[in-house]
Amino acid sequence: MATRRIGRSTVRFAAPPVIVSAGTVAGPMESRGPMARWFDEVVPDDMFGERSAEKAERRFMGDAVKIALTQAAVQPEQVDYFIAGDLLNQVITASFTAEDLGMPFIGVYGACSTSAQSLTVASALVDAGFADLALAATSSHYQTAERQFRYPIELNIQRKSTSQYTATGAGAVLVGRSGGKVKITEATVGRVIDMGTKDPNQMGPAMAPAAAETIFSHLADTGRDPGFYDVIITGDLGSVGSQILLELMQRRGVPLGDNYADGGVMLFQGVRGTGVGGSGCACSALIMDGFVWKRMCEGEIRRALIVATGALLSPLSWQQGESVPCIANAVTLQV
Amino acid sequence: MATRRIGRSTVRFAAPPVIVSAGTVAGPMESRGPMARWFDEVVPDDMFGERSAEKAERRFMGDAVKIALTQAAVQPEQVDYFIAGDLLNQVITASFTAEDLGMPFIGVYGACSTSAQSLTVASALVDAGFADLALAATSSHYQTAERQFRYPIELNIQRKSTSQYTATGAGAVLVGRSGGKVKITEATVGRVIDMGTKDPNQMGPAMAPAAAETIFSHLADTGRDPGFYDVIITGDLGSVGSQILLELMQRRGVPLGDNYADGGVMLFQGVRGTGVGGSGCACSALIMDGFVWKRMCEGEIRRALIVATGALLSPLSWQQGESVPCIANAVTLQV
Repeated sequence: MATRRIGRSTVRFAAPPVIVSAGTVAGPMESRGPMARWFDEVVPDDMFGERSAEKAERRFMGDAVKIALTQAAVQPEQVDYFIAGDLLNQVITASFTAEDLGMPFIGVYGACSTSAQSLTVASALVDAGFADLALAATSSHYQTAERQFRYPIELNIQRKSTSQYTATGAGAVLVGRSGGKVKITEATVGRVIDMGTKDPNQMGPAMAPAAAETIFSHLADTGRDPGFYDVIITGDLGSVGSQILLELMQRRGVPLGDNYADGGVMLFQGVRGTGVGGSGCACSALIMDGFVWKRMCEGEIRRALIVATGALLSPLSWQQGESVPCIANAVTLQV
Repeated sequence: MATRRIGRSTVRFAAPPVIVSAGTVAGPMESRGPMARWFDEVVPDDMFGERSAEKAERRFMGDAVKIALTQAAVQPEQVDYFIAGDLLNQVITASFTAEDLGMPFIGVYGACSTSAQSLTVASALVDAGFADLALAATSSHYQTAERQFRYPIELNIQRKSTSQYTATGAGAVLVGRSGGKVKITEATVGRVIDMGTKDPNQMGPAMAPAAAETIFSHLADTGRDPGFYDVIITGDLGSVGSQILLELMQRRGVPLGDNYADGGVMLFQGVRGTGVGGSGCACSALIMDGFVWKRMCEGEIRRALIVATGALLSPLSWQQGESVPCIANAVTLQV
């Protein structure tokens, strides 16, 4: 049995799977930012014509999946696994989407790190011959996330200056053995890091140490330095969290250079009312499955490290005075 | 690349991983049933001396993991992945346990099917060489589940005659390449089946069609008939749901025989106040990781099909009038 592990936290795929196709669907706020041109579909009404925001979120995920399947001319019956998760309790968006698709379903939860987490599981299953095609998807929605984690937006609670703004949208990636330029070559699964933060308005700073830990492990396991990558992109630390990450990496002796950016900052640059940046499962999914993948298909980016960051809190845990366990999952994409 | 798929929904492991060790911890109601002698630890106080039931649930999962690691004389640092989930929102029990353990963490959600789901992912990662050791765990708790899905028990709401009783406890399985008698040979990942049930007190009947679908697919994919197995055990259909399953299999021309039993019925046989049987992630985990695994180690059972069943509802989805999507995940264990 060939081992696929390199180091404590990283695996290297033996026959690197490829991204066959990807679909991204974004909401109205997301369409005002500089990333908008990289999305496949932009929906001006964040309710998607539905009666509830939860139903709307399903439409986002469903459309992202449809786009990925259509691009690849693949029927749902040809896909071996649907691996998906979202922020709502009991990952209900993913479950209802799985019902519509009829594919064997593996529900996953990595909070906002779900984009990289689901892609890792999909890639592992394809690499090892458990699947010919696996579909990884995730979504988030500003309104459903506020209702789930903070307050329903109808209450009109004033947002804190350090708050991030949950991205409304979804991303889906079809992973296969061949038929794409972009390979998934390594994956680093994170450990849970908890620095004792208890404020749900401080998610970026809470997640920064988890991002640092995963990037540090990834580089140690692979023997690379940050300059190996054209881009290193964290999921959704926001402007405050990403500054902390830069300081942490500096202190650990592995400073990140100009190739580093944060997806939450990229998504909402210049968009009023989005606080210190985007967050939510859709944030890193939109950046990875939209901007990064398309730039890689064009050959403009050749090596990317995507570090999706997640705050694994629940409304109940922080109401009970618990701190926020955080995680970061990384995947290497190479042309 | 050798394919490990057989049929639409089933994989056959190329180098079948083994169960190196398993740990089970059960609460007071569970200790009154006929399965009690198969549990490693029985806790007379379902609060485990903690201030909240949520904290107590973590103690159950933590102890199950500790027992599995101790039995195998394995340190947490030697385990490559912790794959776990539970019923609470944002799988918070699993996340906090992952934090304590410091292992690379993959959070999964399959409702009460999580025992087989997490074992499937762990087995796939070991079989393919992504891990030498992977730990799969799940838990549930009567009080936390009632607060999460129905009403806090302090309200003293009268239970319906068709209600099931969520098992309090946890199970953990350490999966490796060698060092155990019991092999995981095949896994069938379920598709989501939704028959339109909207009553959260009717989970067994809601899940029965998903169980039928997965058993039927498994037998078709493997070319086996039900008689191949010494035991076929569903997770937590309860007495009403398992009767429906028997009828559905009869109608599909593949009747189940005396080798069929339901874990929810087994767990609480003769225990007053447990309705039509047990449910919850811990239900199938206690039966599989306790009774079945130990009977297999003794050579009393040689071939087992464990069909863990899950109702993927969320409190929000049924409050919004949605039906309950269900799933069943199956694993074959062989000596």
